[in-house]
Amino acid sequence: MEVRGTVPLRDADDLSLAYTPGVARVCEAIAERPELVHDYTWKSNTVAVVTDGSAVLGLGDIGPEASLPVMEGKAILFKQFGGVDAVPVALDCREVDELVETVVRLAPSFGGINLEDISAPRCFEVERRLRERLDIPVFHDDQHGTAVVTLAALRNAARLVGRELAALRVVISGAGAAGVAIARILLGAGVADVVVCDRRGVVSRDREDLTEVKRELAEITNPAGRSGSLADALAGADVFVGVSGGTVPESAVATMAPGAFVFAMANPNPEVHPEVAARHAAVVATGRSDFPNQINNVLAFPGIFAGALQVRAKRITEGMKLAAAEALAAVVADELSPRKVIPSPFDPRVAPAVAAAVAEAARAEGVARV
Amino acid sequence: MEVRGTVPLRDADDLSLAYTPGVARVCEAIAERPELVHDYTWKSNTVAVVTDGSAVLGLGDIGPEASLPVMEGKAILFKQFGGVDAVPVALDCREVDELVETVVRLAPSFGGINLEDISAPRCFEVERRLRERLDIPVFHDDQHGTAVVTLAALRNAARLVGRELAALRVVISGAGAAGVAIARILLGAGVADVVVCDRRGVVSRDREDLTEVKRELAEITNPAGRSGSLADALAGADVFVGVSGGTVPESAVATMAPGAFVFAMANPNPEVHPEVAARHAAVVATGRSDFPNQINNVLAFPGIFAGALQVRAKRITEGMKLAAAEALAAVVADELSPRKVIPSPFDPRVAPAVAAAVAEAARAEGVARV
Repeated sequence: MEVRGTVPLRDADDLSLAYTPGVARVCEAIAERPELVHDYTWKSNTVAVVTDGSAVLGLGDIGPEASLPVMEGKAILFKQFGGVDAVPVALDCREVDELVETVVRLAPSFGGINLEDISAPRCFEVERRLRERLDIPVFHDDQHGTAVVTLAALRNAARLVGRELAALRVVISGAGAAGVAIARILLGAGVADVVVCDRRGVVSRDREDLTEVKRELAEITNPAGRSGSLADALAGADVFVGVSGGTVPESAVATMAPGAFVFAMANPNPEVHPEVAARHAAVVATGRSDFPNQINNVLAFPGIFAGALQVRAKRITEGMKLAAAEALAAVVADELSPRKVIPSPFDPRVAPAVAAAVAEAARAEGVARV
Repeated sequence: MEVRGTVPLRDADDLSLAYTPGVARVCEAIAERPELVHDYTWKSNTVAVVTDGSAVLGLGDIGPEASLPVMEGKAILFKQFGGVDAVPVALDCREVDELVETVVRLAPSFGGINLEDISAPRCFEVERRLRERLDIPVFHDDQHGTAVVTLAALRNAARLVGRELAALRVVISGAGAAGVAIARILLGAGVADVVVCDRRGVVSRDREDLTEVKRELAEITNPAGRSGSLADALAGADVFVGVSGGTVPESAVATMAPGAFVFAMANPNPEVHPEVAARHAAVVATGRSDFPNQINNVLAFPGIFAGALQVRAKRITEGMKLAAAEALAAVVADELSPRKVIPSPFDPRVAPAVAAAVAEAARAEGVARV
């Protein structure tokens, strides 16, 4: 990966424009009218990919330096798919207060903050406080990127079999960053019956071992007041969404409702093998590139940030995420099959469609600056 | 300016290497052997250009966002002249403690820290503490870059007229970041009689209005115990080095010793116009590109960081700075004239020569890792 100029620098005249004395006029202009920083610097197209290395992929807490390859990979995807310049920022600190303060101090250089691989439940608090403090988009991709792509796949799976989202009973396995965000976006999209399971089973109001985040989740999910294990919850369910890294036996999948959807997204080992799931389900998706229907965040974050940056959005709202999911689903709405409820990561229509929808939603919701 | 990948990303196979699942193996390798971060990420070729926007060019305290154009210009010069990838990091904080902590937390992502446009005297303390805390090069360019190029020009001016550095009496106007660093490097290079003047005149041990940094300066400079004004100090002096932004009347320049050197480096208005200075001096240099002998930091920082990063130096030592100045002077040692005591910023020999000398000095001083 490299940083490079996009304008030539050939002689003393170019040098005196790009650097002193010419650059002083640009600085003065921004000092006088701060919004010009978007026109005269790379800020408005640049995102910091921020982590503390505490929850990297499935590897766990490997620290900031060992997390850098993931942040670099992410930066390359930002550029390739969204045309967004992204800078890996792996921070050597762990306290929520420190993370928040550090990112606030960094923020003047960037048009957006993509949080990445920060462990739950700290990630929720870090994101919430940064959203309050900053007037640029702050987006924890492990939560919202995954949620947007999952909703898009679910929307198309329902479309394929002629069902309404509101009528589906959904079981999510995993109550970390992804599970919590998926539950919230599905509720926002109109799914009425969402049950979330953690390692101890269904997250319900009568449990006394819940963290604050899970207590909030228990308030807004599980309207039927279920309890018990993941297997108990799956009996008769229409949709399984796995973001846990655990395993689900075939016998449990077999108890799901006819024509079920199984999104077994744990990486590299899906909660249930897709071929096994296909014996019982109408639509199967995974997080892997070697099976059909890959639920991959790269379908969301490049377009979401490209759209948000394009209109200099102050934040990324629920409406912008829902619009992103709609637009992503719509890309393949006319080509649907059980093996294609979501576009390929290399489908060139994806990022422009998502970006346009996000920009439009930002304007509609009044968070766009231009 | 842009961030982009240097390897192609064409299909699902490339994607699975650059991102999940392939990237996990790279992360695991670094987690196991931390030094591999230099081989497997862009860290070892990447520098953060860090400012708080408190002393930007001659514009003063214009804040982080308005300082971004300078940091971007610097980043482009890093790449063009040194092949070093540089990222602008304009921080929204002012306390020395906050600046230091923030940069320490950021450091895992970078192979070096270039401090820029941080006001004196905070810049001295920030740099000192960061050098103690970090095991990567920390370099305040306003101090050391300017000092290296000034020493190189002085070395060649002395060579041109057949004089020894040790025999020169030098007067520096300005006791900020640049003035202090120039005084120190000249003393390190063997100049015996250095006098520094601030707005109130000669910095001397008997003054009672000195900051801590200037008290230290008074201890190591001014061996003859001079006092009085800048004009007093200039009478009979061999060298004037202006980094003050003030003005020096022709009458004062006229009192200097025969064959004097005048380096009037204030930008954009030299302390004395070079054509006026030339009536009295053997060699005249400025900070401007439209007169001969431009003392420009771009002659130093790209090569210094390129050399330090090449050997993964833990820090930049006095010896490395002196080696950089020697190498820079040597580039034009066979072409010397009163109008050419320093190479042009676009001389392609400069950065490679400086980098090689810095890398060799790092090895000789035991701060190189490879």
